Amino acid sequence: MMQPHVSESAFEPPCQQTSLKSSDSSESPDSSISSVGVALIGLGTVGSGVYKLLAQENVQGHLPVGIRGIAVRNPNKVRVLERNVEHASFSDPQALIHRDDVQIVVETMGGITDAYDCVKAALLAKKHVVTANKALIATHGSELFELARKHQVRLLFEGAVAGGIPVMMPLKLSLAANRIEAIAGILNGTTNYILTQMATAGLSFEEALEQAQSLGFAEADPTSDVEGEDAAFKLSILASMGFQQHVMPQAVHRHGITTVSALDIENAQTLDYTVKLIALAQKVEASETHPECLTLRVQPMLVPASHPLARIDNEYNAVWIRGHAVGDVMFSGKGAGELPTASAVTADILAIARDLAAGNDPIAGMKIPAMPEAVIQPIEQSASRYYVRVTTLDQPSVIGHLGLACGAAGVSLESVMQRGISPNATASIMLLTHRVTHAQMKQALENMRANGSIQQIDCVLAVLPC
Amino acid sequence: MMQPHVSESAFEPPCQQTSLKSSDSSESPDSSISSVGVALIGLGTVGSGVYKLLAQENVQGHLPVGIRGIAVRNPNKVRVLERNVEHASFSDPQALIHRDDVQIVVETMGGITDAYDCVKAALLAKKHVVTANKALIATHGSELFELARKHQVRLLFEGAVAGGIPVMMPLKLSLAANRIEAIAGILNGTTNYILTQMATAGLSFEEALEQAQSLGFAEADPTSDVEGEDAAFKLSILASMGFQQHVMPQAVHRHGITTVSALDIENAQTLDYTVKLIALAQKVEASETHPECLTLRVQPMLVPASHPLARIDNEYNAVWIRGHAVGDVMFSGKGAGELPTASAVTADILAIARDLAAGNDPIAGMKIPAMPEAVIQPIEQSASRYYVRVTTLDQPSVIGHLGLACGAAGVSLESVMQRGISPNATASIMLLTHRVTHAQMKQALENMRANGSIQQIDCVLAVLPC
Repeated sequence: MMQPHVSESAFEPPCQQTSLKSSDSSESPDSSISSVGVALIGLGTVGSGVYKLLAQENVQGHLPVGIRGIAVRNPNKVRVLERNVEHASFSDPQALIHRDDVQIVVETMGGITDAYDCVKAALLAKKHVVTANKALIATHGSELFELARKHQVRLLFEGAVAGGIPVMMPLKLSLAANRIEAIAGILNGTTNYILTQMATAGLSFEEALEQAQSLGFAEADPTSDVEGEDAAFKLSILASMGFQQHVMPQAVHRHGITTVSALDIENAQTLDYTVKLIALAQKVEASETHPECLTLRVQPMLVPASHPLARIDNEYNAVWIRGHAVGDVMFSGKGAGELPTASAVTADILAIARDLAAGNDPIAGMKIPAMPEAVIQPIEQSASRYYVRVTTLDQPSVIGHLGLACGAAGVSLESVMQRGISPNATASIMLLTHRVTHAQMKQALENMRANGSIQQIDCVLAVLPC
Repeated sequence: MMQPHVSESAFEPPCQQTSLKSSDSSESPDSSISSVGVALIGLGTVGSGVYKLLAQENVQGHLPVGIRGIAVRNPNKVRVLERNVEHASFSDPQALIHRDDVQIVVETMGGITDAYDCVKAALLAKKHVVTANKALIATHGSELFELARKHQVRLLFEGAVAGGIPVMMPLKLSLAANRIEAIAGILNGTTNYILTQMATAGLSFEEALEQAQSLGFAEADPTSDVEGEDAAFKLSILASMGFQQHVMPQAVHRHGITTVSALDIENAQTLDYTVKLIALAQKVEASETHPECLTLRVQPMLVPASHPLARIDNEYNAVWIRGHAVGDVMFSGKGAGELPTASAVTADILAIARDLAAGNDPIAGMKIPAMPEAVIQPIEQSASRYYVRVTTLDQPSVIGHLGLACGAAGVSLESVMQRGISPNATASIMLLTHRVTHAQMKQALENMRANGSIQQIDCVLAVLPC
């Protein structure tokens, strides 16, 4: 729980002497009258970045935004704040949210439970909300968007996906005339760094993870990243906004990168592909057998070297969008970090503040119809080409067996290649299939497992585009 | 001149029977009362695309935008229009602009003179304006922005740079908290296609140009593209918006790609670079010798293979932006074409229409201070690393002569490489310099020309980053 440190009087912040050093807190005492009031909840990495950007001359210059107060978990931690905190105080988040002179609540606490309480309270109090909390938006977005709609306030979250790279606003505004057909992203810098190092430096997964950890690109517990959970959160947000349907992160079929080997990456390169953890949301047109639906997956995929996403390396993120009018566009950059994410959060604050300062209704131009729940294609029906690597006995008939195992499941093969012979008289064989369903591929793998000459299925990866 | 075809009565468009087939022109006769009125001036490639996108169900669904009329050069040309033209008429542009039920004028005529008259008239009549006309904005932007500011209307032009790729709106809104430090773009698909084909298929400039023409990627008269004029127009717009200073296209130092040879592209590849026509606008901090200023250039450059712009091939466009908070971000895509450009124009229309439909003042949130004229760094002071290829006599002392010619101008060399010996006892030598000024490089080249053993300076290219 956030430690409340109540400060009802904004004019005599009780903590200012002990824990807040504001270099010019006495400046422009009357600016709070006309400026748009921001409550900053959380002063960690992103919160500090937002604070810095709002304190800038140039932002101050073109818009009066004042930070009315900051709520922090530990109010006794000494922080040096520079400017733009009008009568700054470290106060109880709830008290801060409900202040009459606060119009925008900026949630940068992280986590889900406290952040949810804070954002919900703000929306109920008819305050506009800006957050970069992907887990919160992915998990409670449906309820929070509905609350925002009901209370006629905005809930913006540009920083939740791809950090500072502009994605949500371009998707909503710049591509407004498009029917979005597909969104594919490299949304997790940690896994992209690991896969890039495996591809370029020939490291194993474990070695690359260790390197990423030592460089600060991976957390001590990397589970959420390497298992694709972080990317699934972001994809569910992107898909919800792009297709205007609520997508829960649980609806995303998810497969991590822990089983990707350096050998498969090398094989992919031989075939002119690269292996990336791809977050894919794609519209599937209605057919005789199913209604229009979405296919949603986060999984390591073979990406053709000619695809723009193949060139996104190391800690870079990218979101590739196909719209029926614009064709393919891609937004890329480093994304993560204090100031990049703060850049996105501050842009959201300024977007709302501009309207408020002008006396415009910030929600009026944005009326969003209630979003339906997304219809998700069962993963068994989803279709891809597949790369498969198997270990077999080194026998003349083995490729025949593989072909028959696949053929019996309706899986036709594009190519079959043997890659060297192991000392123990086994062969490593790569298959590339034509486009088949997940169910067909599963059946083909079962058929292989039932065949005595096929010893082991080492790796199965889908191939982009799906 | 556009042929005026006056139609004062919007309810009985005189041309409808003869040249306009509207499949459901009688639909929702009273929708014009509440919908935002658009006047479409020009129905060429982009205009037709805008018409199609505004007629879509999904756009119709979330916003009432009605095309009040269309002005075309040749009103007798038969066109099949489908929906969304309320009481459509092919009318005199001036009459159309001044209709009370028109709030947004969309200029898709192309050219400068007529477009200027049309846009100016619209702004004077307090109509919001959307255009994709890069030549118009680059040439008359300063005056037109001032008019828009004075008359409190918006002038949007997302489609003028990089076609459908969202750039202007993200730059203005999503990166609002950033001080922009540099903008580098591949802004011309024709030249990028030519350079890519020279690099990948080993074609000469002439062969690649011919191929581009036969595929429709280059015009019969490619001068504006290959000489960098088109890119300079776009760069001046990007720089004006990014740095909030008026930049005239004439202020852009410009060098085309006609002198780039396949050999230089091959040499660049050997050095792990690729050659691109780069449009670069960069802030130069104030120093003892000069005030803060901008360096602006469109020129073929060596781009390191690791730079995101190196991977933008063929007809793709990209804009790479460095902001002090966000770091580096890039927007890329195919950009050009009917629907991509229309996607950008329609997004601008919808951005204005959303505010109008909500009763908001569309300009209020966007108050732009009058922009100062940009201070441009004289090209002589601009600094780069340089690639130079010279033909010399094949003598042992020649590298010494080159080193002395450069050294006397203050140009120090990073590397010197001989690439084969010609039959007539000459040598082809590549130099890579450290970062020097344009003036220093010029002096070094003069020194070389004065040296008898250096026969010819074949190619001089700047190296990114500058």
